[in-house]
Amino acid sequence: MNEVEIDFEKMGGLVPAVVQDSETGEILMLGFQNAEAFEKTISEKEVYFWSRSREKLWKKGETSGNILRVVEIFADCDDDSILLRIEHDPNLNACHTGARSCFFKKIS
Amino acid sequence: MNEVEIDFEKMGGLVPAVVQDSETGEILMLGFQNAEAFEKTISEKEVYFWSRSREKLWKKGETSGNILRVVEIFADCDDDSILLRIEHDPNLNACHTGARSCFFKKIS
Repeated sequence: MNEVEIDFEKMGGLVPAVVQDSETGEILMLGFQNAEAFEKTISEKEVYFWSRSREKLWKKGETSGNILRVVEIFADCDDDSILLRIEHDPNLNACHTGARSCFFKKIS
Repeated sequence: MNEVEIDFEKMGGLVPAVVQDSETGEILMLGFQNAEAFEKTISEKEVYFWSRSREKLWKKGETSGNILRVVEIFADCDDDSILLRIEHDPNLNACHTGARSCFFKKIS
């Protein structure tokens, strides 16, 4: 059991989870986790999200192969955001567009 | 005007915004922005959030002094998450607990 309890209730069942390359610090994507996605991520050490559009549990990379392998997980001070630090993999493209990171749209 | 339009509507008016030290890559906190917080962050180059608990616009550091100075901003592929890369400041404590980062609770 974890000493940290994520406050899913406060957040309507879903909390934001940021994915960061543990070696480079690069932020690769942001998804939402419900309690089940969070627990499966911990037990399998691979990242699961809740898909808001499809309304179902979703293992990242299940079809694309871009599995996110967890190195360490942190909760924030209020227990309502999650940081997923993952294994560095130079060949990983975390974004569904094929980009390495989802955050490629620079605001001018 | 920006070419990127954040999809606040899809997200019920609020999108998650991750704050990252632009020099070290450290993730310092995650907050939520509405359209007003986002626009003021761009125009003032200092970070604003929407406080869900207080239900008001909130300039980060207004009382604590821990102002977050924006270096660059990215939207994600779906235009529903924001990455705020800020100036490195070794004396900054982004967390309201006094910690440098809000993400200090390691999940065992």
